[in-house]
Amino acid sequence: MSVLTEFYAGDLLALAKIISHVENRGPETDRILAEIYPRTGKALSIGITGPPGAGKSTIDDKLCALFAGRGQTVGVIAVDPTSPFTGGALLGDRIRMQDLTANKNVFIRSMASRGSTGGLAVATTEVIKVLDAFGKDIILVETVGVGQVELDVAEACDITVVALVPESGDSIQAMKAGLMEIADIFCVNKADRDGSGRIISEINMILDIKRDKKKRDFPVVGTQAVNNLGMDELLERIDKEHEYLKTGDNYVSHRKKKIRYDIMKTVEHRLKARLAKEILSERRLSDYIDSIYAGQGNPYDLARNLVDDLK
Amino acid sequence: MSVLTEFYAGDLLALAKIISHVENRGPETDRILAEIYPRTGKALSIGITGPPGAGKSTIDDKLCALFAGRGQTVGVIAVDPTSPFTGGALLGDRIRMQDLTANKNVFIRSMASRGSTGGLAVATTEVIKVLDAFGKDIILVETVGVGQVELDVAEACDITVVALVPESGDSIQAMKAGLMEIADIFCVNKADRDGSGRIISEINMILDIKRDKKKRDFPVVGTQAVNNLGMDELLERIDKEHEYLKTGDNYVSHRKKKIRYDIMKTVEHRLKARLAKEILSERRLSDYIDSIYAGQGNPYDLARNLVDDLK
Repeated sequence: MSVLTEFYAGDLLALAKIISHVENRGPETDRILAEIYPRTGKALSIGITGPPGAGKSTIDDKLCALFAGRGQTVGVIAVDPTSPFTGGALLGDRIRMQDLTANKNVFIRSMASRGSTGGLAVATTEVIKVLDAFGKDIILVETVGVGQVELDVAEACDITVVALVPESGDSIQAMKAGLMEIADIFCVNKADRDGSGRIISEINMILDIKRDKKKRDFPVVGTQAVNNLGMDELLERIDKEHEYLKTGDNYVSHRKKKIRYDIMKTVEHRLKARLAKEILSERRLSDYIDSIYAGQGNPYDLARNLVDDLK
Repeated sequence: MSVLTEFYAGDLLALAKIISHVENRGPETDRILAEIYPRTGKALSIGITGPPGAGKSTIDDKLCALFAGRGQTVGVIAVDPTSPFTGGALLGDRIRMQDLTANKNVFIRSMASRGSTGGLAVATTEVIKVLDAFGKDIILVETVGVGQVELDVAEACDITVVALVPESGDSIQAMKAGLMEIADIFCVNKADRDGSGRIISEINMILDIKRDKKKRDFPVVGTQAVNNLGMDELLERIDKEHEYLKTGDNYVSHRKKKIRYDIMKTVEHRLKARLAKEILSERRLSDYIDSIYAGQGNPYDLARNLVDDLK
């Protein structure tokens, strides 16, 4: 309890402790999240996603500096995907993070899955809540790849920026990967390279369908994050989107969408955890595997029996 | 039941019907899967994954032709990720598939998620089982991006080929995305392009750690799939890996690993389906959202209560 008191008082060590506890699914996780929940809902969370090599880290760094520069406090979550061997977090990012943490308004945290499918997106959502309750104005969430974790994280954030580079391949590839649907703002980075004009018009063309459907604008911004070019425009677009989300009906529907996501993900995840601990404990699972290997039964009848047995 | 009889007799229409039923989670899904299960375990399933633009479709096509050329029957599953707007499958692939299906030994199926998180990987695993029971010798599973669905599909397949191109960016990016861990065979495609030598040595360097740990080889093959170069070597490597999986202890541990995966995924998925239908039906969910929006309770206490209520 004393850690929470220190957390409420703005203590950074307490913040780090609570994040670790939540990320590692410590025994107090649910109690802490329930306790801090009334303090959440004030921060703006921004997901930055896109294919590897699109310069997401750089965009993240520059945005971070812009927010901090106008006095806003920033929490950065760098999400590494499941990596059964390395645990996910790589040295390069660690080093980069030490650079950024020199700014005391900026708190950076790298997250790596502990191997449980779906667990990473849930833990990330919960760490967003912790940073929100702590009082951070802005929470930047940077993901690594283009996949389910990214789609989940995008759903958890208030605004999603999708970063691409001219070499990212045809924009149809981006569309395939589901990026068109999740993007509130597109950022074509390394915009000095060949083909950037073409990719911007292609994205705009595809976005026109979405614009028509949703009756609103989805901007495409060209940037060279490494040279700080276009970053002001990107910030402006984020601010505009933030304004939109705060207005009247948009506010209510946006908040409810987020609450829905939190409920769904939390219930699913807690149910899965119970599954692993009781119904499919390692010993039971081992017996089931041996039976099926020996030709008795199959996974589908087994699943039906186990799930029907509940309640 | 008569569809299953036709299915057992090798009828392609019956195969297509059963796949559709399973993919769309028809009411007979579990019964069909349980019924055909004893006929599975003979096919070799190969997952082909990697970042967008790596030429996976082309590699897939050429491999397909090589397998068919030596008299093996092939089932191809093209997995598109969750796309809430388009449903996933895009015109380009449909056209390509019509070309390939001219060969009657090859059966091609495009899969798109119906929006349920995690559902795509599960459905793909089940369609692999259907093709396996149908008697296909080889099942090629081609995924679109680099994410959780891909990691899951890789786990479901017997062999995973990871395709990269010299422009895929630093190999450290591939490592980040978890590709190093899931790859049995690396394929550096478009190997005529600048930087292919460098990326091959980088991958080899990183793989040496994995080779040491696992006490076996993980080959890296350079290809130009579009010109049919290197494809014979890729096929040879796949054959060698297949031999390895069929030998003695490897066979038992490999089979048990696959059964474990099937049990885990099936139970998880069926539990989630029950959740959506009963515990978190749309009406109940709506009430919960309104309460929390009004300041009463939070997702974490709610989840604990709902999950504790079971059994």
